[in-house]
Amino acid sequence: MKQATVFILLLVLTVSGICLAQSNRIDSIAVEDFKAASTNQPGKQYPQVNSEGRVRASISAPEAKRVQLDISAVKYDLTMDTSGVWTGDSNPQDEGFHYYQLWIDGAAVPDPNSLYFYGASRWGSGIEIPAKDQDFYALKNVPHGQIREHFYFSKSNNSMRRCFVYTPPGYDKEIKKRYPVLYLQHGGGEDETGWSNQGHANLIMDNLIAEGKAKPFIIVMDNGTWRRPEQARPLRQGDRPAGPWPPAGWADGFKKTLLEDIIPMIDASYRTLADQAHRAMAGLSMGGMQTRIITLANPDKFSHVGIFSGGSISMEDVKNAPGFKEKVKLVFVSYGSRELENHRPGRPFGGDPKVNTDSLKTAGINTHFYVSPLTAHEWQSWRRGLHEFAPLLFKD
Amino acid sequence: MKQATVFILLLVLTVSGICLAQSNRIDSIAVEDFKAASTNQPGKQYPQVNSEGRVRASISAPEAKRVQLDISAVKYDLTMDTSGVWTGDSNPQDEGFHYYQLWIDGAAVPDPNSLYFYGASRWGSGIEIPAKDQDFYALKNVPHGQIREHFYFSKSNNSMRRCFVYTPPGYDKEIKKRYPVLYLQHGGGEDETGWSNQGHANLIMDNLIAEGKAKPFIIVMDNGTWRRPEQARPLRQGDRPAGPWPPAGWADGFKKTLLEDIIPMIDASYRTLADQAHRAMAGLSMGGMQTRIITLANPDKFSHVGIFSGGSISMEDVKNAPGFKEKVKLVFVSYGSRELENHRPGRPFGGDPKVNTDSLKTAGINTHFYVSPLTAHEWQSWRRGLHEFAPLLFKD
Repeated sequence: MKQATVFILLLVLTVSGICLAQSNRIDSIAVEDFKAASTNQPGKQYPQVNSEGRVRASISAPEAKRVQLDISAVKYDLTMDTSGVWTGDSNPQDEGFHYYQLWIDGAAVPDPNSLYFYGASRWGSGIEIPAKDQDFYALKNVPHGQIREHFYFSKSNNSMRRCFVYTPPGYDKEIKKRYPVLYLQHGGGEDETGWSNQGHANLIMDNLIAEGKAKPFIIVMDNGTWRRPEQARPLRQGDRPAGPWPPAGWADGFKKTLLEDIIPMIDASYRTLADQAHRAMAGLSMGGMQTRIITLANPDKFSHVGIFSGGSISMEDVKNAPGFKEKVKLVFVSYGSRELENHRPGRPFGGDPKVNTDSLKTAGINTHFYVSPLTAHEWQSWRRGLHEFAPLLFKD
Repeated sequence: MKQATVFILLLVLTVSGICLAQSNRIDSIAVEDFKAASTNQPGKQYPQVNSEGRVRASISAPEAKRVQLDISAVKYDLTMDTSGVWTGDSNPQDEGFHYYQLWIDGAAVPDPNSLYFYGASRWGSGIEIPAKDQDFYALKNVPHGQIREHFYFSKSNNSMRRCFVYTPPGYDKEIKKRYPVLYLQHGGGEDETGWSNQGHANLIMDNLIAEGKAKPFIIVMDNGTWRRPEQARPLRQGDRPAGPWPPAGWADGFKKTLLEDIIPMIDASYRTLADQAHRAMAGLSMGGMQTRIITLANPDKFSHVGIFSGGSISMEDVKNAPGFKEKVKLVFVSYGSRELENHRPGRPFGGDPKVNTDSLKTAGINTHFYVSPLTAHEWQSWRRGLHEFAPLLFKD
């Protein structure tokens, strides 16, 4: 797999919702059953979503000449009423979560009506299109784990860092019990907040555990971004960071932080089962590529591997990774179906993931391949990926 | 104290940064030592703050006719350069945290460069003006507690609710130790995220504990908003919610939730010292008024009382609250100095807080009065309030 090419592909995909946007008109008349989105700020009636998955945005801008809704790589013109309020619809969107923004006379701004999420290298608007399977990440009256904001000093970075740690329901009650740990990474242009804020990793786990479908384990969500904060700036299409390629820190830099700082800190701070058999790593997009590289190089440290929309592991990889075949108990690979459609057959992300996972299965490795129906390189694919992956972890 | 009047005053103060805004020009030439604000999104160079406390905002809006920076109740015109980027300065701001927004051709929007905070009844931009005493809420390499996102089912509301719980450093290590609890409330138009996001309550406590200046205790930050979420909408100057006044839920509704749901849930979920001697309540603005009402009515439940910019307790209050004088171990009242300047002498918030606290002291109640220098009804007053209040809590 040519890593540089794949990496650029992932970057472009990650930011494409904003960067490839073009003006467009809606394709037909909307069904008038719009309701306020679940991702709206408290009390806000817009944006709305209808049964087709169209988004209707609205904002007061009485002096503006042009206002647009920018979602899924398309800009939709809004129209102004006599009171100065601009309103307009998008075409139907895929189920799940999408980043979006508004354009007001050439300024790209967050929608003041939405909640904000970190992705596409910025805190900005996001919207939830109700999905047929949304029950698996719904907030229910079941026992809940906690998301803990955890500050720690990293020697390898000589700085304070932050991670979020999910402790499962019962963690504070069963004070002699020790738990396996999943290290779960975000994608390029995202950060340590993504898996809980828009990924709902905590609710997915709470619901799976309540149904007896997954074992309780700890999840650690840290920041795998490969550029130092002082170097960070919003990504644009075709961006390539200065310096050597792939950039230092992309996988190797985070690997050092993970192995030398994060894992020992977590094992010292929580009641973990601190061995290879009870340690998993997974990630989406860039985080999946980091997972692939770090786990192939450290089969003595991780027993369960999950790669969501971030490549796959081939038999050639396995042959070049001594101990991987013998020690790793699970390889899980997933994609959104639209990601596979949108690439040349047989060559998505440097190797057909189905061919690769089949070859691992044939070689006797416990391998799973999952395709999320009708979703792209977006959070609904990754929520579903975690939902399929988690029940397979840490089986006796 | 006429509660309805005071309540309206607090609401107006809370939202005045946005609602009273008027166009204005800067008062003199800015000192050119601007630096990116600490509250910017990663990698963003604007907004900036200079040594005078001026804010310089910047945004690309090539097709716009008018762009303004709206901060501390004043709108400042920005000017466009030949590349379509608008830039402009505010007058010097008070030290500490301020909510702000941009206006683009009549649309009020968050600044896409800033982090976002919940206040003034919306998620929107905030900016930090470096303060001389900012060290007390800085992120340092000291032992850190955690902020935990805690979901629970509330019987009295028949719904899932969320609070944030600060557990002090060492909580997960000293597994036989039990801790006192402070219930700490936000103001009107704010929510359960305020005290940790913009208040830095966790960092204030971590630093005080590291210096040996405060005892470790648990802090519970829940949502005291008196309107149900489905009724919520942005507040405007002069707003008065429909229905009976004061509205049900403002103090009494939250009192029921606090006493019947939150406190029992916290005592069951954490290693608390579950008695009056080890239970405190404090709050800012509306949360201070709730604290006053709830603690006066329940001196058997709370021993320590903190009211930040939210009124004070008079001897008349004490005389009407059986048991309060005997059982309550601390009454703490604080204001920003500008709040006291801006009201009729002797009558800020329904009774001079200095006169009231002096009368309580004379009566033998352990009472403290603190005035934050040169700050208004804003977070720097409340950070300082907590910083003064916390060392006084749960002394043996």
